[in-house]
Amino acid sequence: MVAPIIITAAPIMCAFHNVMLPSQNYGTKKGIKQGLGVKRGSCGGLQIKANAQNHHNGDDKISKVVSKSSIRQNFTIRSYEVDANGIASVETLMNYFQGSMIYHGKTLGAYNDVAGTTKEMIKRNLVWVYSEMQVLTYRYPKWDDVVEVETWVSTAGMNAVRFNWIMRDFKTNQVLNTASSVSVLMNKLTRRLSKMPEEIRRELESYLVNSRIIIEDDHKKIPKLDDTTADYICTGLRPQWSDIDVNFHVNNAKYISWILEGIPESILMNYELSSMSLKFKRECKIDSKLQSLAEVCSDNNNSNNNVEYNHMVRFENGVEILRGRTKWRSKLTHNFDIFNHVPEASIKDL
Amino acid sequence: MVAPIIITAAPIMCAFHNVMLPSQNYGTKKGIKQGLGVKRGSCGGLQIKANAQNHHNGDDKISKVVSKSSIRQNFTIRSYEVDANGIASVETLMNYFQGSMIYHGKTLGAYNDVAGTTKEMIKRNLVWVYSEMQVLTYRYPKWDDVVEVETWVSTAGMNAVRFNWIMRDFKTNQVLNTASSVSVLMNKLTRRLSKMPEEIRRELESYLVNSRIIIEDDHKKIPKLDDTTADYICTGLRPQWSDIDVNFHVNNAKYISWILEGIPESILMNYELSSMSLKFKRECKIDSKLQSLAEVCSDNNNSNNNVEYNHMVRFENGVEILRGRTKWRSKLTHNFDIFNHVPEASIKDL
Repeated sequence: MVAPIIITAAPIMCAFHNVMLPSQNYGTKKGIKQGLGVKRGSCGGLQIKANAQNHHNGDDKISKVVSKSSIRQNFTIRSYEVDANGIASVETLMNYFQGSMIYHGKTLGAYNDVAGTTKEMIKRNLVWVYSEMQVLTYRYPKWDDVVEVETWVSTAGMNAVRFNWIMRDFKTNQVLNTASSVSVLMNKLTRRLSKMPEEIRRELESYLVNSRIIIEDDHKKIPKLDDTTADYICTGLRPQWSDIDVNFHVNNAKYISWILEGIPESILMNYELSSMSLKFKRECKIDSKLQSLAEVCSDNNNSNNNVEYNHMVRFENGVEILRGRTKWRSKLTHNFDIFNHVPEASIKDL
Repeated sequence: MVAPIIITAAPIMCAFHNVMLPSQNYGTKKGIKQGLGVKRGSCGGLQIKANAQNHHNGDDKISKVVSKSSIRQNFTIRSYEVDANGIASVETLMNYFQGSMIYHGKTLGAYNDVAGTTKEMIKRNLVWVYSEMQVLTYRYPKWDDVVEVETWVSTAGMNAVRFNWIMRDFKTNQVLNTASSVSVLMNKLTRRLSKMPEEIRRELESYLVNSRIIIEDDHKKIPKLDDTTADYICTGLRPQWSDIDVNFHVNNAKYISWILEGIPESILMNYELSSMSLKFKRECKIDSKLQSLAEVCSDNNNSNNNVEYNHMVRFENGVEILRGRTKWRSKLTHNFDIFNHVPEASIKDL
């Protein structure tokens, strides 16, 4: 369970801080994932039709308030946001999702502050934290490209919500990637997870869009790696001052950097990430020393030339921080007409 | 000498790669700094009056082409660009300078590609590299603030140029910080510095604005630190995949992160950087292991409650990568009406 939305002047979707799952609140983790009996249905959807709203004279622009529940925000890929492959890094995508999620609440007025917290959440010292994150990428934007990120929220059981994102090429409207996170409530004082109080559920109700599920839950279990099962172990990792936010949390995008550290450079150079599934367990502190483990699940001898890894980031003492699975496609076989990569079923929903 | 402007599809002002100063080209380093007899004079300045040009529908916006030689570009401080103090990090400022420098050439048409290289530079395989960087900060913007970065170029001797920046609060027009870099030419194949050929000088001539010097050369020598003179030594630093750009260069902003690693956390929390002077020596590679050394030059017992450090980032074998000097002002005594902090002499030039 990771990534509290911070609650001070400069909020950042950040990393989880020793959060314990209180059994008296949740019963089991499985209970959260299974939705605890809540049906997914359509709600929200009042059309505001406020296209091309430019909220200020700056460079981050809300291009559309699509409905009461959904906004679209433009980002230009800045020169320092591309990676060694010359395309927007995965960390950059995660940062855009975070930024757009914060604007979602601010723009729609659903939340009471810039951290995505409602009035009732503030009363109870509750903040959102990511527990899971899934990303599917079809094409990566490059420097100076403009992307439009659409953001909305749906339910994910009695005690969780799903933040959902579609990133499109602004010029062509082509879908570049989709992402979805399961976020739960955490008490920022006790650092323990919390049930969702009825008052908060009511506050959010009219902003939820449950008819647009873009990524189904990834139920495939990610194994816990150890020294015997890992093919690569990268040691000596640690957060730096520049990685932490105002609450001394490590920005969630940094976790992706650590995952990438566990992968051979030849893969990072010749392949590109096609999907990623993360399960956040706990947060590290500024003085933590970390290790990134990776296990090869398939190699490039398979027919489609793809590669798959399991991951774990852990403290040096072995306690795990996150588990993940990444899939990579060879750049050599990559067709840059991205619609060839978008599954037919997904297109209908977008 | 550091930070080549990369020359491929996705340019980044990045870090210098084992560049040797060829004595046959320069004579002495001192020769570069003293300008080799070139007088600073005014040139350029054709008024284009193309205010509020928005070059695309994205979020990075050229707000003004001030003259043939100067542009202003807006940036919104994104949620993931603030540091633990809740304000734009120094790395963010450096990134904006880099981004704006690249847009300068692209917008004015002075350069032939997105890396800030002219036609004659491309013919000769030459790129710009930072050799020095000075930054003066008066106030740091916070999340969602819009800043306007003005960029122009002036001469700095026979073989160098100066990229200059003023960052203003877009709403109030108040000056937030100023910066200036000395950049020299490097052959990207031989990795050696080069004289500026006459053809390149002629290409740049009409774009130079030598009447607007905002930061004078910092001639105060920064001492070379070692284990006996350093007060703090931070070891075990190394670049990560996410720090490198398409040319396998470390982004220049990362060097700032390493400097900050050498400073006690209590300073980073309670003080803010008021000025920084860097002398780049050489670049590190992706597999380099680094150390960040800091020496206290003054402490908070002085009358104005400021702190000053000397810095060195070096390889583990002692070979230095950069030297720097940073000055910090106590946040407790900081007056957020920034014009109280801008020296009268500077205001006149801005």
